[in-house]
Amino acid sequence: MRKALVVLSGGQDSATCAAWAKQWYPEGFQCLSFDYGQRHKRELEAAKRIANLFGVAHEILPMPALAGGPTSGLTNPAVDVTQVDPVTNLPRSFVPGRNLVFLTAAAAYAMARGIYHLVTGVCQTDYSGYPDCRRNTILALEHAIGLGTEGLPVLTIDTPLMHLTKAQTVKLARDLPLGWEAVALSWTCYEGGAHPCGKCPACVLRAKGFADAGMDDPALAHYSEV
Amino acid sequence: MRKALVVLSGGQDSATCAAWAKQWYPEGFQCLSFDYGQRHKRELEAAKRIANLFGVAHEILPMPALAGGPTSGLTNPAVDVTQVDPVTNLPRSFVPGRNLVFLTAAAAYAMARGIYHLVTGVCQTDYSGYPDCRRNTILALEHAIGLGTEGLPVLTIDTPLMHLTKAQTVKLARDLPLGWEAVALSWTCYEGGAHPCGKCPACVLRAKGFADAGMDDPALAHYSEV
Repeated sequence: MRKALVVLSGGQDSATCAAWAKQWYPEGFQCLSFDYGQRHKRELEAAKRIANLFGVAHEILPMPALAGGPTSGLTNPAVDVTQVDPVTNLPRSFVPGRNLVFLTAAAAYAMARGIYHLVTGVCQTDYSGYPDCRRNTILALEHAIGLGTEGLPVLTIDTPLMHLTKAQTVKLARDLPLGWEAVALSWTCYEGGAHPCGKCPACVLRAKGFADAGMDDPALAHYSEV
Repeated sequence: MRKALVVLSGGQDSATCAAWAKQWYPEGFQCLSFDYGQRHKRELEAAKRIANLFGVAHEILPMPALAGGPTSGLTNPAVDVTQVDPVTNLPRSFVPGRNLVFLTAAAAYAMARGIYHLVTGVCQTDYSGYPDCRRNTILALEHAIGLGTEGLPVLTIDTPLMHLTKAQTVKLARDLPLGWEAVALSWTCYEGGAHPCGKCPACVLRAKGFADAGMDDPALAHYSEV
């Protein structure tokens, strides 16, 4: 059985990846999300709704190893997520090792269940400055996982958005069955409010993608009605 | 501050690594353990006692991504840990991705706290047939973590036991301050009984190391008194 596991944050990119997996893994997929004490817990509710939209299994697992990290604004409310660290040049929203932890844990979870394909929405084109979204990181991790599980079938990490601009990701979602509906349910904003704030770096990046694509973000209509 | 984080399972090897870290990281170390629903929960109690012996901070974090994995005898009581899978040639105790998940999560945990040195007791000499204990896996993972956190100081993964035989590890523990006391507290047995069973693959491997070194395992005396 060629099944996939989508690492579903609940944001626009992973919502698009769920639609992509539905298209490219006709034998089925399921979804996994992580609760690491992120300030924008609403993305986990969004993930649940997106998995329901596709009618697939979905689990949210705690990841306390990332929770309460003092350096990131996503896990420490005292840190301003709009800033960039002047020494490291990394955004203050960066959670060191987050994608590495998610993908490694997802790989272990998948392999224990006979699934050997991960799908993740990481992207290095219009990326947020997170080094673990880059292709070199993902390839290196895929290699490490392959060595660490030698004897089992080789696990692949699909990154369908890696080289797309945000505008291209918007268009991809539009062209995929249920893609647009999934994006309408997705949550990107770093703040935990009832509606996207429109001001945090994640909201700004998302808005730019829709503007460049010449389309309205369906989530704005959705969340203004909620 | 050159501090280390020891990934402490509570077994003989990680107990030895704690003593090693005390010697080689005079500025300090702390310990991290993972609760993944392992059948031998006693190793976590052992980890706590070992950290107390050294007087260092210790945290046990849940890792539900590994829990309940159906293929491994360590997370599924219905699987016989003494068997080897005839298709993959991997021991039935193998938890796919376990060390990768532990080390990646430990790296994220450490880096968020300004620690850039991990210490782990993995060993490929007299190893249990787990591919993620091998040097090639650890080097590949270290590389992936470095790429995924580029901008931060480079994290290193120390593996002081990598090329030692079990007998050499026994002698190393004997020669390190508090090493023998730490090994006396350590728990290796896959079974969850009051005393080590002496029959599971982990007990057999451990006993062979002490026999080859010509020494008695101090844990046998310790646990027979408990």
